[in-house]
Amino acid sequence: MARVERPFDEELTTLKERLLEMASRAEEQIGLAVRSLKDRQEAMACEVLDKEEAINRLDIEVDGLAMKMLALRQPMAADLRFITAAMKISSDLERIGDLAVNIAERTLELLKQPQLKPLIDIPRMAEMAQAMVRDALNAFINRDADLARDVCLRDDEVDQLNDQIFRELLTYMMEDASTIPRAVDLILVGRHLERIADHATNIGEDVIYMVMGKTIKHHVEEGRFTGLKGCPEKD
Amino acid sequence: MARVERPFDEELTTLKERLLEMASRAEEQIGLAVRSLKDRQEAMACEVLDKEEAINRLDIEVDGLAMKMLALRQPMAADLRFITAAMKISSDLERIGDLAVNIAERTLELLKQPQLKPLIDIPRMAEMAQAMVRDALNAFINRDADLARDVCLRDDEVDQLNDQIFRELLTYMMEDASTIPRAVDLILVGRHLERIADHATNIGEDVIYMVMGKTIKHHVEEGRFTGLKGCPEKD
Repeated sequence: MARVERPFDEELTTLKERLLEMASRAEEQIGLAVRSLKDRQEAMACEVLDKEEAINRLDIEVDGLAMKMLALRQPMAADLRFITAAMKISSDLERIGDLAVNIAERTLELLKQPQLKPLIDIPRMAEMAQAMVRDALNAFINRDADLARDVCLRDDEVDQLNDQIFRELLTYMMEDASTIPRAVDLILVGRHLERIADHATNIGEDVIYMVMGKTIKHHVEEGRFTGLKGCPEKD
Repeated sequence: MARVERPFDEELTTLKERLLEMASRAEEQIGLAVRSLKDRQEAMACEVLDKEEAINRLDIEVDGLAMKMLALRQPMAADLRFITAAMKISSDLERIGDLAVNIAERTLELLKQPQLKPLIDIPRMAEMAQAMVRDALNAFINRDADLARDVCLRDDEVDQLNDQIFRELLTYMMEDASTIPRAVDLILVGRHLERIADHATNIGEDVIYMVMGKTIKHHVEEGRFTGLKGCPEKD
């Protein structure tokens, strides 16, 4: 079957460029939101809100481009998997942008009150999440399943750090009720970062599927949902 | 261009059936998780954990089927939009399933402790979220943009109810520090339900795009991110 190589390759390149731009903006938004919280800079939080629109526009553009390629180029096999992965990744990046906005909104609440404590673990968690987003996109661009798997594995570390933050904030609240609203806001910031890491993990899983042609989503075969927290073991 | 009508229509029907089954399972999982919390029935929470796998398998099946249809049928226009919408909807339903599991996990924590208060608003929020999931899927199957828009509008009500739950639980914590761990768990349940409603809204937006061929995602044109919470208005 004859295929016009040139424009299709150009479209693929555009798709990659837009996704890289989205990822770099998403990463920047996470950094900005958490720096705003750590350094108590309201203007930075407002900057996050202002910049969200650009990511949303890119999401719409990527989606439109991918749909056009599916409709007009009728790609097969590897190209098809690349394009559908791009659509999913775009949607994950857009949600990462939303979560950065959620962090900025929490920050604006927190900045109305005195600082509860100097923040160390939350910025660390943000750095881990940012690196996951960056590596997940590099894995996508370079079709690197090993790097993608590495991203997925790092999700557990983020979860553990979040649990640690959660427990520490609980003790603050128990000791001094006046800290409760701020501690709850910080717990929510932790949850937002955890979800950002989840979205990076989704991207990693999509890359593995794209490269290997098989899904590791859900780990269904491992039966990891047995024996959870006091529920009876299944046979 | 000649098109083999029969098998393609059969594939479309299968796709719809699988998505309806996913949606009905997701809705059931939300109901089960919240009933388990409300009625303090541990077995029900365990049931939610057990049943998650079925939704994950359906997600993989829908994804595979959609990819096959894209590859072999090379659908155009309306069919193409239907299939790509199906992929997105499947992924939203799978995440709704995850969130029901998160609620069940919180419930298992909460059941280790005495009941904080009889739950009224959380079950109400769950019912609203369930109805949104159900209606979003009906909108998809019947290509009903009005119903889809209605689903999107209901998201605000869920958000408001969640804010109300959040504020009420804050007062519990402030008055009695011993309630803090339970109140925080209930706040997180509220957040999970809010996110379920967000995913139903995503589905509604995808349906509107599918039917109208235009996106209402992000409402970019409305510039809704100006003037937020003390940030300077943009020109």
